[in-house]
Amino acid sequence: MFYNFGMTTKEINSFTHFDNNVISYLTGIVGQNNIITDSEGIYAYSFDCAHIPFNKQYPKVVVFPQNTQQVSDILKFANKKRIPVIPRGAATNHAGGCNPVKGGIILHFSKMNNILEINNQDLTCKVQPGVVVGDLQSALKAIGLFFPPDPSNLAVSTIGGGIALSSGGPRAFKYGTFKDYVLDLEVVMADGSIIRTGAPTVKNVTGYNLTQLMVGSEGTLGIVTEATLRLIPAPETSNVMLVYFETIENAVDAVSGIINNHLTPSVIDLIDKKTVQTIENFYPTGLLCDKDAVLLIEIDGDTASVKAQEQKIIKICNEYGAKQIDCAQDEMQKQKIWTARRSAFGACAQLAPNVITEDVVVPRSKISELSKGILDISRKYNLITMVMGHIGDGNIHPNFALDLRDIKQKRNFEKAKEELFKLSVSLGGTLSGEHGIGCQKANFLPLALDKTTLQLMIQIKKVFDPNYILNPEKML
Amino acid sequence: MFYNFGMTTKEINSFTHFDNNVISYLTGIVGQNNIITDSEGIYAYSFDCAHIPFNKQYPKVVVFPQNTQQVSDILKFANKKRIPVIPRGAATNHAGGCNPVKGGIILHFSKMNNILEINNQDLTCKVQPGVVVGDLQSALKAIGLFFPPDPSNLAVSTIGGGIALSSGGPRAFKYGTFKDYVLDLEVVMADGSIIRTGAPTVKNVTGYNLTQLMVGSEGTLGIVTEATLRLIPAPETSNVMLVYFETIENAVDAVSGIINNHLTPSVIDLIDKKTVQTIENFYPTGLLCDKDAVLLIEIDGDTASVKAQEQKIIKICNEYGAKQIDCAQDEMQKQKIWTARRSAFGACAQLAPNVITEDVVVPRSKISELSKGILDISRKYNLITMVMGHIGDGNIHPNFALDLRDIKQKRNFEKAKEELFKLSVSLGGTLSGEHGIGCQKANFLPLALDKTTLQLMIQIKKVFDPNYILNPEKML
Repeated sequence: MFYNFGMTTKEINSFTHFDNNVISYLTGIVGQNNIITDSEGIYAYSFDCAHIPFNKQYPKVVVFPQNTQQVSDILKFANKKRIPVIPRGAATNHAGGCNPVKGGIILHFSKMNNILEINNQDLTCKVQPGVVVGDLQSALKAIGLFFPPDPSNLAVSTIGGGIALSSGGPRAFKYGTFKDYVLDLEVVMADGSIIRTGAPTVKNVTGYNLTQLMVGSEGTLGIVTEATLRLIPAPETSNVMLVYFETIENAVDAVSGIINNHLTPSVIDLIDKKTVQTIENFYPTGLLCDKDAVLLIEIDGDTASVKAQEQKIIKICNEYGAKQIDCAQDEMQKQKIWTARRSAFGACAQLAPNVITEDVVVPRSKISELSKGILDISRKYNLITMVMGHIGDGNIHPNFALDLRDIKQKRNFEKAKEELFKLSVSLGGTLSGEHGIGCQKANFLPLALDKTTLQLMIQIKKVFDPNYILNPEKML
Repeated sequence: MFYNFGMTTKEINSFTHFDNNVISYLTGIVGQNNIITDSEGIYAYSFDCAHIPFNKQYPKVVVFPQNTQQVSDILKFANKKRIPVIPRGAATNHAGGCNPVKGGIILHFSKMNNILEINNQDLTCKVQPGVVVGDLQSALKAIGLFFPPDPSNLAVSTIGGGIALSSGGPRAFKYGTFKDYVLDLEVVMADGSIIRTGAPTVKNVTGYNLTQLMVGSEGTLGIVTEATLRLIPAPETSNVMLVYFETIENAVDAVSGIINNHLTPSVIDLIDKKTVQTIENFYPTGLLCDKDAVLLIEIDGDTASVKAQEQKIIKICNEYGAKQIDCAQDEMQKQKIWTARRSAFGACAQLAPNVITEDVVVPRSKISELSKGILDISRKYNLITMVMGHIGDGNIHPNFALDLRDIKQKRNFEKAKEELFKLSVSLGGTLSGEHGIGCQKANFLPLALDKTTLQLMIQIKKVFDPNYILNPEKML
């Protein structure tokens, strides 16, 4: 079920109508070197990191704009012709957020990838949407500044994608997600008009918060062409440890102990046995493979404070029955632990042709129930499942390894997915913490949102995109 | 200029049409003890902390709902009858956010003031809108938890008001404002329907961010009846110091020095000479009255870290020419400094019959220019002005002491205000950091927002409140 504003399938399909005039008009805007129309190229942009259970759809054209004015000109044209426009960064998302399900124009931001300004005094930076998150972080690190959000794919994923999904990552426990760092956006609206949503100040209540309405809206309300981000001073130092427990419940209890003692590590991640085994198989670093749960805990701050927190956390974990605590002794060991953690998704790819990462979130106190429920559902549907996630945030990413060509497996997975979402909602949680809704979860929105709320969102979409051209069939 | 959706003055005035049936219907909902209609009572609710330069308008009735269902019943009725509804907390706002400029029903939340839950494990709390901010902070402090936003009037101002304006306060430099702590809201819509905007989780990208659309919307989109707030562990300790400088520029440079050295005090406030003199006159604590600027700097964290930061900050301030540094030596001295700081607004009331607090915000690097500009404007219009504010956030609150009965002074102030807003916008800043737009600044919105952005906001307002009953003539 999509909220197509009452349009018929025929009308929607007419979106895909293209002629040579369209291509030559777009070429006129961006130049011959910034447009792809050949079938190999088109194929490469027909999917993203998600495994979409729909028939494949292809964009008609991929366009690489180089500045805001070009984006505006393209949208003005597309809006008049009712052609869908799908913004795209590195396409690392897991929910089908940039699949061209209705054809149209892919707007690829790899050529708008400049860090325009880093302001050391205002603690802000101005960036284009195609900037890679990891590149921004490296540039900032060199001058002692810090943009905390750290999606696991930060080596390739872009600022535009991070804004579209309010991406987080492990450090969200202490530092929050993208939404907590976006101060102001330049956005091109569906009709080509260019607006600014906020101001480059940390405080601002001048009008409704359009900035936060844009963040997480997956390119369905407007297309971000520039962002002003808030920065913070880089912590003086950090350290990381792995803490092994006999059961997931023990690990969860230890996390409660840490939080009840008012400690705030930068990261508290949970990795289950199956995940540890898979990582160790792929990238051997001497992880302990026979314990049901391991916590990855990172602490940061000034040197005195990190040492003090480390000792307290070790003491608490021991009180809660930790079986082994491996605290990194130097930079190399820290990097090794993080590389192992970040390779989890890749490692899982050994197990089956497809790995699907889910993304549910519950209040932290419900993590044990959620984890147990995920393993029960997996057993019921005979699925290979690895549970890991940001336990400090209540955000769990189960990785399902399966073969989508196998109809039975695929059907089982679909059923498991629905049960997973229902479980999350029944525990007071919701459908997505940081991967977004895309076209994969749009059908499930009514599980989490009441009818009035959904209707409000549809009305907002109509205000921003009356012709339904912006990333259609995503979210709503 | 208000955006009245093309209604004529006659139509708008028909809002104020009331008959006895209306009163008896409302009495039926809330009971006889929860409604005020007599003229003394009505008068008391006809103004708030702002000095509105309009003709006085009175509400027809003040109603004290006790639960969400009553709010819903009242709105359903008011929406049908096209009667304005103005939500009200402690009315400490400075922008005319709860003035009943078109008459109607004041919805007073003092009887919905329960802390419903504090969840030590999830680090969340659930509160009603009438809870006083200071009361929540005391309840949390007792168990080592922390809700950082600290508007200066926190002894009386309410959570509902804080959400309506995304209030901040001095600690926003390190900790942000209300918007950074609101996870989920229960909101009654104009038609009486009840929605939830989010989830009680720190990560959530399930649909558009209606939570943040509500925060800061001044009750113009819906009426908040319950909020789930994010908490953090209370810092182990804190300390505070006063640092005196010969000029405002020197103080601003020292702040840049602190920030460039990657230190993050919880508070960096600036107080100018005139303010210091006024405070010292009102509440003598031995403040140095002959320096142009004093910085109030608070540091918090664990004990080891606070001591280390304190030493670094003292060293930097001395390098930047500090004339005297008074570092609190015990809890009593800390309290004394804070009481002096918080009494600034009250102290200014000695100087003239009216004190008007303004609230502009610029990128931090523009603070010197803004402060100098404010003093220039004040001289030009012969106004007594005290400059103070949260310099770490770029958020300055000039206090203007004047007699609004004096037509010339009033006219001069109006001109000064317009110049102040234009100056702030020309420096890359905006109209309000944390006091809101209310009916006092609505006319000035086009200075800060372009036409398309304003039109989008008007369209959003129409979606949420098609009959224009929610807090009319505020913001838009």
